[in-house]
Amino acid sequence: MTLVLTPLRAIPLIRPGDDLADIILSALQPSSLELQDGDILVLAQKIVSKAEGRLMDLAAVVPTAKALELAASSQKDARFCELVLRETGEVLRVGPGTIIVQHRLGFVCANAGIDHSNVAGEGSAEQDWVLLLPENPDRSAGLVRERLETASGRRLGTMIIDSHGRAWRLGVAGTCIGLSGLPGLVDMRGQSDLYGFTLRVTTIAAADELAAAASLVMGQAAEGTPVIHVRGFPYPLREGSLRELIRPKELDLFR
Amino acid sequence: MTLVLTPLRAIPLIRPGDDLADIILSALQPSSLELQDGDILVLAQKIVSKAEGRLMDLAAVVPTAKALELAASSQKDARFCELVLRETGEVLRVGPGTIIVQHRLGFVCANAGIDHSNVAGEGSAEQDWVLLLPENPDRSAGLVRERLETASGRRLGTMIIDSHGRAWRLGVAGTCIGLSGLPGLVDMRGQSDLYGFTLRVTTIAAADELAAAASLVMGQAAEGTPVIHVRGFPYPLREGSLRELIRPKELDLFR
Repeated sequence: MTLVLTPLRAIPLIRPGDDLADIILSALQPSSLELQDGDILVLAQKIVSKAEGRLMDLAAVVPTAKALELAASSQKDARFCELVLRETGEVLRVGPGTIIVQHRLGFVCANAGIDHSNVAGEGSAEQDWVLLLPENPDRSAGLVRERLETASGRRLGTMIIDSHGRAWRLGVAGTCIGLSGLPGLVDMRGQSDLYGFTLRVTTIAAADELAAAASLVMGQAAEGTPVIHVRGFPYPLREGSLRELIRPKELDLFR
Repeated sequence: MTLVLTPLRAIPLIRPGDDLADIILSALQPSSLELQDGDILVLAQKIVSKAEGRLMDLAAVVPTAKALELAASSQKDARFCELVLRETGEVLRVGPGTIIVQHRLGFVCANAGIDHSNVAGEGSAEQDWVLLLPENPDRSAGLVRERLETASGRRLGTMIIDSHGRAWRLGVAGTCIGLSGLPGLVDMRGQSDLYGFTLRVTTIAAADELAAAASLVMGQAAEGTPVIHVRGFPYPLREGSLRELIRPKELDLFR
């Protein structure tokens, strides 16, 4: 099946309290897209965080002693480090300019996913505002999905993505941080390969593959767009969760 | 721009010596695809390796002492371990059933990318045949690209992908192991974001994002297809190399 990823061009700048489902439904029309069963909507983390009011004013943050320590070793703002620590399960690596953590949500990423860019505060110096990840991205994805399904009468999937660096390889790639209505992993074990032999390995990180695909279409700069419509996802939709994709610490050889 | 990934359905089982460019050109016709400037063809590693005769008969492999050691610690076949070591720059982690190495080509993967599945020998017990990665995937991609460009008169990109496990996350995802005519990384630093601020991070692993997208469409099982046609890659084509994507050891906090 052909996989088609279409950016929705009519998404306005998102503000706290905005209704993302309504905005997506409105944006589908100029793109001449009518939702069908099996379609998936991929949302950039930033618009979900903004709609949920996850903007934080650094001026209001008081760093703890631990944050001051992290600020010294990472050469980052202590108030920023304080927010990173609040969002962090475990700090994995720190170096000048680099903080890699296991986020409280389970995945490993830089700066606990807290972002300075594309963040605009209201009547304040913009560099004092930062944007935290959604509190519960699976839930956020589920809420948008429920609204879109109700409005369309279709069986849909929704996913929230961020750009993560990787061990071993340079550059960031789109990565799933929350999903609803589609599989995180697809287990191919036991299926036959082209020669009729049983596949041995191969649990496919289907949601992450789709996240990377959508990220490619989103872009990162001014001409980017934060919502991608996907048609042709090749696996059956089902209930899913970010948790599927998180490698348990005891199975992780690289922490 | 919309990104469209179309699997080429008419790819036969590949044998050593097959001409992949000819096979792709023939397969484009039943898919009603005429190549255009900017199109990219993504090839599964397996068909490139097979066409290049990278099948090895384990029965002909004599393990060294080092391979016998690795076989003991990994609980894998010593002849298989011998081939892994020949393809390896550095062994990073070994456990029961697991060998993670830096491949001689630079990337980190399991078993040096050597594969048992989808491998059929000629008149021999199939489990004795394994498939090594192409000797030089950038070059392999370049050769196919040159032939396709000559035949079509179009400016194209070609990429070879494999499925790699990841640190921190479960499941395998499509990953670029060789490319020609497209960027590995796209450097967005210095560009403006939606609010006119300068993007600070954000070198995008565009080739890996495309690899993941193509992998999603390929699938892994019997109904899978090893060549994907891509239209709408959002960045300008240029000469590229796998080397762009490899994180230098001194910049890698997780080895």
